[in-house]
Amino acid sequence: MHMKPIRVAVAGASGYAGGEVLRLLLGHPAVTIGAVTGSSNAGQPLGALQPHLVPLAERVLEETTVEVLAGHDVVFLALPHGESARYADALAALDGGEDTVVIDCGADFRLTDPAAWERFYGSPHAGSWPYGLPELPGQREVLRGARRIAVPGCYPTVSTLALAPAVAAGIVEPDDLVVVAASGTSGAGKASKPHLLGSEVMGSVSAYGVGGVHRHTPEIVQNLSGLTGEQVKVSFTPLLVPMPRGILATCTASVVAGVGAEEVRAAYQKAYADEPFVHLLPEGQWPTTKAVLGSNAVHLQVTLDAAAGRMVAVGAVDNLAKGTGGAAVQCMNLALGLPEETGLTAVGVAP
Amino acid sequence: MHMKPIRVAVAGASGYAGGEVLRLLLGHPAVTIGAVTGSSNAGQPLGALQPHLVPLAERVLEETTVEVLAGHDVVFLALPHGESARYADALAALDGGEDTVVIDCGADFRLTDPAAWERFYGSPHAGSWPYGLPELPGQREVLRGARRIAVPGCYPTVSTLALAPAVAAGIVEPDDLVVVAASGTSGAGKASKPHLLGSEVMGSVSAYGVGGVHRHTPEIVQNLSGLTGEQVKVSFTPLLVPMPRGILATCTASVVAGVGAEEVRAAYQKAYADEPFVHLLPEGQWPTTKAVLGSNAVHLQVTLDAAAGRMVAVGAVDNLAKGTGGAAVQCMNLALGLPEETGLTAVGVAP
Amino acid sequence: MHMKPIRVAVAGASGYAGGEVLRLLLGHPAVTIGAVTGSSNAGQPLGALQPHLVPLAERVLEETTVEVLAGHDVVFLALPHGESARYADALAALDGGEDTVVIDCGADFRLTDPAAWERFYGSPHAGSWPYGLPELPGQREVLRGARRIAVPGCYPTVSTLALAPAVAAGIVEPDDLVVVAASGTSGAGKASKPHLLGSEVMGSVSAYGVGGVHRHTPEIVQNLSGLTGEQVKVSFTPLLVPMPRGILATCTASVVAGVGAEEVRAAYQKAYADEPFVHLLPEGQWPTTKAVLGSNAVHLQVTLDAAAGRMVAVGAVDNLAKGTGGAAVQCMNLALGLPEETGLTAVGVAP
Amino acid sequence: MHMKPIRVAVAGASGYAGGEVLRLLLGHPAVTIGAVTGSSNAGQPLGALQPHLVPLAERVLEETTVEVLAGHDVVFLALPHGESARYADALAALDGGEDTVVIDCGADFRLTDPAAWERFYGSPHAGSWPYGLPELPGQREVLRGARRIAVPGCYPTVSTLALAPAVAAGIVEPDDLVVVAASGTSGAGKASKPHLLGSEVMGSVSAYGVGGVHRHTPEIVQNLSGLTGEQVKVSFTPLLVPMPRGILATCTASVVAGVGAEEVRAAYQKAYADEPFVHLLPEGQWPTTKAVLGSNAVHLQVTLDAAAGRMVAVGAVDNLAKGTGGAAVQCMNLALGLPEETGLTAVGVAP
Repeated sequence: MHMKPIRVAVAGASGYAGGEVLRLLLGHPAVTIGAVTGSSNAGQPLGALQPHLVPLAERVLEETTVEVLAGHDVVFLALPHGESARYADALAALDGGEDTVVIDCGADFRLTDPAAWERFYGSPHAGSWPYGLPELPGQREVLRGARRIAVPGCYPTVSTLALAPAVAAGIVEPDDLVVVAASGTSGAGKASKPHLLGSEVMGSVSAYGVGGVHRHTPEIVQNLSGLTGEQVKVSFTPLLVPMPRGILATCTASVVAGVGAEEVRAAYQKAYADEPFVHLLPEGQWPTTKAVLGSNAVHLQVTLDAAAGRMVAVGAVDNLAKGTGGAAVQCMNLALGLPEETGLTAVGVAP
Repeated sequence: MHMKPIRVAVAGASGYAGGEVLRLLLGHPAVTIGAVTGSSNAGQPLGALQPHLVPLAERVLEETTVEVLAGHDVVFLALPHGESARYADALAALDGGEDTVVIDCGADFRLTDPAAWERFYGSPHAGSWPYGLPELPGQREVLRGARRIAVPGCYPTVSTLALAPAVAAGIVEPDDLVVVAASGTSGAGKASKPHLLGSEVMGSVSAYGVGGVHRHTPEIVQNLSGLTGEQVKVSFTPLLVPMPRGILATCTASVVAGVGAEEVRAAYQKAYADEPFVHLLPEGQWPTTKAVLGSNAVHLQVTLDAAAGRMVAVGAVDNLAKGTGGAAVQCMNLALGLPEETGLTAVGVAP
Repeated sequence: MHMKPIRVAVAGASGYAGGEVLRLLLGHPAVTIGAVTGSSNAGQPLGALQPHLVPLAERVLEETTVEVLAGHDVVFLALPHGESARYADALAALDGGEDTVVIDCGADFRLTDPAAWERFYGSPHAGSWPYGLPELPGQREVLRGARRIAVPGCYPTVSTLALAPAVAAGIVEPDDLVVVAASGTSGAGKASKPHLLGSEVMGSVSAYGVGGVHRHTPEIVQNLSGLTGEQVKVSFTPLLVPMPRGILATCTASVVAGVGAEEVRAAYQKAYADEPFVHLLPEGQWPTTKAVLGSNAVHLQVTLDAAAGRMVAVGAVDNLAKGTGGAAVQCMNLALGLPEETGLTAVGVAP
Repeated sequence: MHMKPIRVAVAGASGYAGGEVLRLLLGHPAVTIGAVTGSSNAGQPLGALQPHLVPLAERVLEETTVEVLAGHDVVFLALPHGESARYADALAALDGGEDTVVIDCGADFRLTDPAAWERFYGSPHAGSWPYGLPELPGQREVLRGARRIAVPGCYPTVSTLALAPAVAAGIVEPDDLVVVAASGTSGAGKASKPHLLGSEVMGSVSAYGVGGVHRHTPEIVQNLSGLTGEQVKVSFTPLLVPMPRGILATCTASVVAGVGAEEVRAAYQKAYADEPFVHLLPEGQWPTTKAVLGSNAVHLQVTLDAAAGRMVAVGAVDNLAKGTGGAAVQCMNLALGLPEETGLTAVGVAP
């Protein structure tokens, strides 16, 4: 790659999503890291906030402003929800700003339905951008050359990929999907909240956002409904488990009468045969989040419970990697016409 | 309690279940601990195997034999499945042996259906004993004065208690129950297996026994089917999560048309209003396994997801306490006519 | 115990220390729990803050004031340092207030040297109270009938008990003591700080307060210097490890020339032979924090490294139990003339 | 790098060390992975044993034999101690075998003193190879072009690097070094032992190999004694902490009279100014193992405790990466004349 380095900025560099984008960009051969910004942490060296990013230790966090973010080829936004639109709008208004690739790691531009947005987020809808899940049918083409991309939520990424082949193939009842997804704590971000203290989460599992109220619910529904045009119903329960990273989603669905185990497996094999990051495990081997730690891989397994009449698909991702920062880099690669896997790996850090 | 101390023996005292029974018995005011036995560990001091049981540190583990177990008022069996029947039979054949209270912490006598036993355990059915879940309708009376008791499995305890009120009240469809239960590692016992190494489980979540093949599946089905006589269907997926103790069961079910949130909650309030160990949390507060650690408490919460058309009930127990050893002591109390809560607590060890 | 129940109040009931005092008091046969107070959490039900304390779930936290704390036989203070003196003074000024037993779980009254206090805490010295470590020579007698007691810090408890027999026996050089103590996160309290987030502490070990600047340093020095009157030097390094509870202190010291392993062991055996909660493990067995979880036990082991010329003593405690709340209850028992072990256990919750 | 790919074999590919070597080699631009071998696991696909190594999932583990290992440019040995010599000897005896680079991740060739080997390992000494710690003075030159390399132990790596500058500069007393090093469980390997079960290690810290009996003790002594020729004394205590990876070593030493904090810091700055992987943190910032997870970085900090008269140096490494597999790859690069950092990163995976 003897091209001119791609100059990237990361807004929200002190948080977990921004830190992960930077971690991956440090291993990306085609980019150079420009502005790294924050809000309350502006003025601090990155080494004090993200000590694992040794090569950036002496970089000082700048205040997040349009001026600071301007002049980059790619801008990653890793901001609290509701804040992306104004930066996106202001960047677009700059000379040549429409050509800047803006990749939003937050939720602002994921939902296409303003009513769903307002119901779950309680604020005006900012709009919707191309959805950064290239493994969805037809979506890779949408992302190639895109200049605005909404990175999917972590739960929707794995839940969608675990259920999509079955829904698309019409082998499960779309109105009876149940997802229980266990997540490490980094999904809740770096804000200090009592229930996220180590003392509280270690040795404990809990459910939260139960009953369809978690904000990732409409995103899962949107993704799966989009496959066939038929509105799906999803019961989604997130669990907080004592680990820093990783999501394991257990997804079950009533199978359509007459569907057998081979047909189920075949649907998954076909859907992901050519995907570089989605890995259907050999029969009988079930995903662990450890195997995908730090990687862009999605591990999947599926089986049929004949007695219960349900299919069970289990998927594992690293919520910060393929679930956020890795997806963001994958989308950048597609947007810029780079090989999709550049700077990414399917190899996890285990044990 | 100025009665003569109750003399108890614990077979399988070096394992997690046996250790928990002993831990609780050490705090029980009416018992004295007689024989403690093991197999491969016989001859070792208990202090080397269960260092937390300080008052028993110098007790030497005896070989598990009928002779050693004889002469106690209560015998707890915490043995690998398939081994309980011969001790139970031999104890019964002793003079006065029918009066000995035998409490089996294993699976051998839980299932009433020989076919289900053989399908899931692959060995001849030993029979069935009174099932040690006093919180099931009518079951407390069965256990009072019983001389043989089968302690429920850990997953079935919490899954059953989380779903029973809804099933019994007929407010959910019995053929569409989905349970995803996240368990700490002690549920898998103390046998050294590579996938249970700390290096493997810390930082990782995985599913196992997926697709209805876990041996606790028929026990959950039996419990819930017994409530109404109508055969239920349960999709049961256990998860292994990085903590030593605790189970959080997320249980969902299609609600019968027209059932509202108040009706759901009322069913749970009514079912458990007088239960000393089952605690329906205030609305909006969801269970954590940490809050029940080391205790005999079951924490429950329930809600209705109108959009998905499903009820979600979440329950937390300590798999070793209320899930095994605590239930065993609770059953002993009932069998002997002691106050049911003797030697037990609803107070967990947190954080 | 057919005496009138002892009426206790707990100030700071929403924190970890206050919660542990309450957990233990709920199992204490001679007390009844009166006022439970907080500051920013006043008005909330305790069940929302300490969900493991089921019997107190509906108790509403009152504002911490002298009026609320008045009228109890025993008042436990579990407050941020610097706040205890004013409550203690005001309680003393009440009619009969000198007879109230006031037990401070905080640091305010631990140090006898005002200069040391001011150097480490940066505020005026409030004074010193009888030090609540009955296992120190002669200290049990000081605590019997005391009306003001300062509960030791968690690190000083285990570090002192692990080194005291050797220092007192003069078999180690007092100016070359090195303590590295690994603590669970609850020792840092419940205040939300970014470095205490589960995402940060899980999977990570770190040192903090390095170089003698941790506030528990002068307390360890005071305890050990008090044994012989000779000023000791202690290099103390605390580590934060990924678990909620427990401290393991590794304590080494140059042995005096000519001292052998038997002499070292004999010093420990003699020192703790009659202590109900200090347990010198059999030779070759080393302490684990798991074995003391939730208990008032201290597990110790000691050996001599002839090649390095140093003794190594390792001690384990539960920082919240024997390290704080358990010690507080033990001290209350002594103050009131109750059997010292009442309401306490040496049995841990494992695994 | 347009050279012919370097063909490597990994013996012991199912263990943690072998897995880590493979993980890193998968990201190394100049190598191609040849034979991967095991013993009891031979015949199994690597995907079943190391599911995180997705690109090698279908590789079948071959039996470890000289024939299988022959014909590679580099052979990594990740075998139980005592097994490396025979493979090394047999490879050397092959035609051209002296040119094969053999890198032993085990202990067999680390110690130069046969007596020390025999005392700690209880078997005949196999000899010693160039020691793979290029950060030691003069050692990088030894490793350039070497054909046999002994990878350092994990504890010795971080303990040596944390103490070497002070010992070499003569600012600490060499006969009073104290190391307490907290390690994640992967350091104990993948063999199933009861005390390494997740149930045992989670929520617990313990010391082991106390009193100078751990096998890494003589290696630390050898490294530090080699700096000045004066025999050092080291009190070394390893701790097992609840995390999969990482070591934090807390190293203290009596400072020579008159040495000040600036002098101490200057020694460390000078020693590591040009080291690509050793990172002396800014003053006041202390290492965490999380920041080095998965990386080849060593994070260090040092301070002076004037009251105790001791220097405290704290170092963090990933025991499997810089502590084993990363060092092995770093040594391979040196041996082959590649840039030393090829395929390695100083960026950790956090949180």
